[in-house]
Amino acid sequence: MIVRFAGLGLGAATLTTVAAASGNTNADVLPPSLDVSSFMAEPVTPRSTLIKDKDDMKVKMEMLIMKIQTDFCRALENEEDPSKKFIVDRWTRAEGGGGVTCVIQNGKTFEKAGVNVSVVHGILPVDAVRQMKARGKELIGKELPFFAAGISSVIHPSNPHVPTVHFNYRYFEVTQENGEKMWWFGGGTDLTPYYLVEEDVRHFHSTLKKACDLHDAGYYPKFKKWCDEYFLVSHRNESRGVGGIFFDDFEMHSQEDSFKFVKSCAESVIPSYVPLVKQHRNDPFTSAERDWQLLRRGRYVEFNLVYDRGTKFGLYTPGARIESILMSLPVYAKWEYMHSPSDGTPEAKLTEILRNPKEWI
Amino acid sequence: MIVRFAGLGLGAATLTTVAAASGNTNADVLPPSLDVSSFMAEPVTPRSTLIKDKDDMKVKMEMLIMKIQTDFCRALENEEDPSKKFIVDRWTRAEGGGGVTCVIQNGKTFEKAGVNVSVVHGILPVDAVRQMKARGKELIGKELPFFAAGISSVIHPSNPHVPTVHFNYRYFEVTQENGEKMWWFGGGTDLTPYYLVEEDVRHFHSTLKKACDLHDAGYYPKFKKWCDEYFLVSHRNESRGVGGIFFDDFEMHSQEDSFKFVKSCAESVIPSYVPLVKQHRNDPFTSAERDWQLLRRGRYVEFNLVYDRGTKFGLYTPGARIESILMSLPVYAKWEYMHSPSDGTPEAKLTEILRNPKEWI
Repeated sequence: MIVRFAGLGLGAATLTTVAAASGNTNADVLPPSLDVSSFMAEPVTPRSTLIKDKDDMKVKMEMLIMKIQTDFCRALENEEDPSKKFIVDRWTRAEGGGGVTCVIQNGKTFEKAGVNVSVVHGILPVDAVRQMKARGKELIGKELPFFAAGISSVIHPSNPHVPTVHFNYRYFEVTQENGEKMWWFGGGTDLTPYYLVEEDVRHFHSTLKKACDLHDAGYYPKFKKWCDEYFLVSHRNESRGVGGIFFDDFEMHSQEDSFKFVKSCAESVIPSYVPLVKQHRNDPFTSAERDWQLLRRGRYVEFNLVYDRGTKFGLYTPGARIESILMSLPVYAKWEYMHSPSDGTPEAKLTEILRNPKEWI
Repeated sequence: MIVRFAGLGLGAATLTTVAAASGNTNADVLPPSLDVSSFMAEPVTPRSTLIKDKDDMKVKMEMLIMKIQTDFCRALENEEDPSKKFIVDRWTRAEGGGGVTCVIQNGKTFEKAGVNVSVVHGILPVDAVRQMKARGKELIGKELPFFAAGISSVIHPSNPHVPTVHFNYRYFEVTQENGEKMWWFGGGTDLTPYYLVEEDVRHFHSTLKKACDLHDAGYYPKFKKWCDEYFLVSHRNESRGVGGIFFDDFEMHSQEDSFKFVKSCAESVIPSYVPLVKQHRNDPFTSAERDWQLLRRGRYVEFNLVYDRGTKFGLYTPGARIESILMSLPVYAKWEYMHSPSDGTPEAKLTEILRNPKEWI
């Protein structure tokens, strides 16, 4: 068995353990259906609880996101210099729960690749509750007991011809003041190219659509539209990227059916994105193209810090691990006063698409 | 007379005029007390109104900030390569008013220097009203007629041994739903070094204190504390920089006395800051020091986009000129997962001070 993590010189305040899943940190032996030996690290929840509550959605979601994290990290490592592996930080949250953060930084293929799992519970403060209020989801009460398990990832490749991808799948349980327990799923996958290759965008959207269509033919059109609306840099009146799918308050069917849909979506990340990395990671590029990539990353930062509800939810949650939330930010970003691409250039073509989201399939 | 502005290739949507103050755009000849010939551009308000309302605080504030802008830009140009001058964009806002934005980008001394004047009026939407609610200032109504005149500036020098400075002085008038008109001033000046030179910080604070003390010995301690509290990157639990002064809802004395205080503060920017530029702009520096500067600029971006009320006020005000608001962002910024300076380094020394704001004089 190979231990695949590496520690950083970390402050003790936020990071309490760095451990591989195979570490014998817990005496309980897991049954084959709960095999965690390949995971990037030991799951957050103790093995005894995983066994006892194996049919509880909290455990099922944690197992799913730990597996998705592993599969995605391994798939990315295949596109990276063999000497560059994900560092793995397993952390615990004083207020309840913890997570596993995997990061590649300054790689050959990936300037920054972050894949974070968090499984947290406790009392949700009012500012965080506010960030969770999606459409149709009004929470009664100001400080509510909650459970949240989610995977979140942003990949900023080095080569400007490889798009950035983001995905996030999450499960929430909140107990309201009146004692009523609510649950829902949320998530999405979206693509942010620096240069537009329409065939790539069609491949990306088609793969997501296939995953959606397994469950309901109405999902892709609905969640594609939601994605375009959500990832809008309002003050620029332009989209962050070419979209994908996005949904929240997902509880239309049984909990099990909802979970299966989320699982399909999460499993579609690798086939939707990794082929684009493979195809373009060695494309030649100019310093002007690199410059454009950094300017677009500035817009990415603007969206994440000004609008993204997930980021705000993190920033307003006490004890949140800030480095795991802000790993979504690129290594380098750039802002230029009054920058505007010249007419007829590939940069102008992208800008045009960002101002006028279109149907890709 | 020398015309000292240069146009950029600008989209017509936001920029309607680029004009020097001496341009004969208006037939009215100003009296000597309203001489605008040296200004970076023609004031926003028509000359006829400046003459007619010369004793109105709206006009007095516009004249003050136009002069401060000019003086500060000229003082910075003195520290810059002689071939590099501020570009001057005079813009109008469809909803009412306009402004003059002066920028140096990629200079030898200044990587980005932005000095913006805006004089705007119209109806304030509810999201913007919310950003204006400072302590003790509850506005009655949801959409309110308003007037705002302010100068705002952020200077990001090229050399990591020269600190970044920010200042902002503003005057507001708001008419509430019940017809009551309110007015107040706000503002502040604060310093963000990358490397701590205590003597420089003491010079900076002393200069601001002198300006405050001319009016009330209680102002500096009060507004120094307010500054420390305001420029806090909460999620990092560290200050943006080493502070300065900050105040809002300022209407303690007569309008005229309040104005005189703001004038003293605004006039103290050059003597507080420019000597530091002069002293350090040619200091030798390493690429590691440059790297640290970029990482700190990442934190600057975090503060401005997540917390700064002025930025949010701009982003939520319809017809706001987004390029003038976000000129505060640096050319380059950097984020590194889990970056932490080694013990005993100058970088660690700065971090320590940012976590524990102190008294400088």
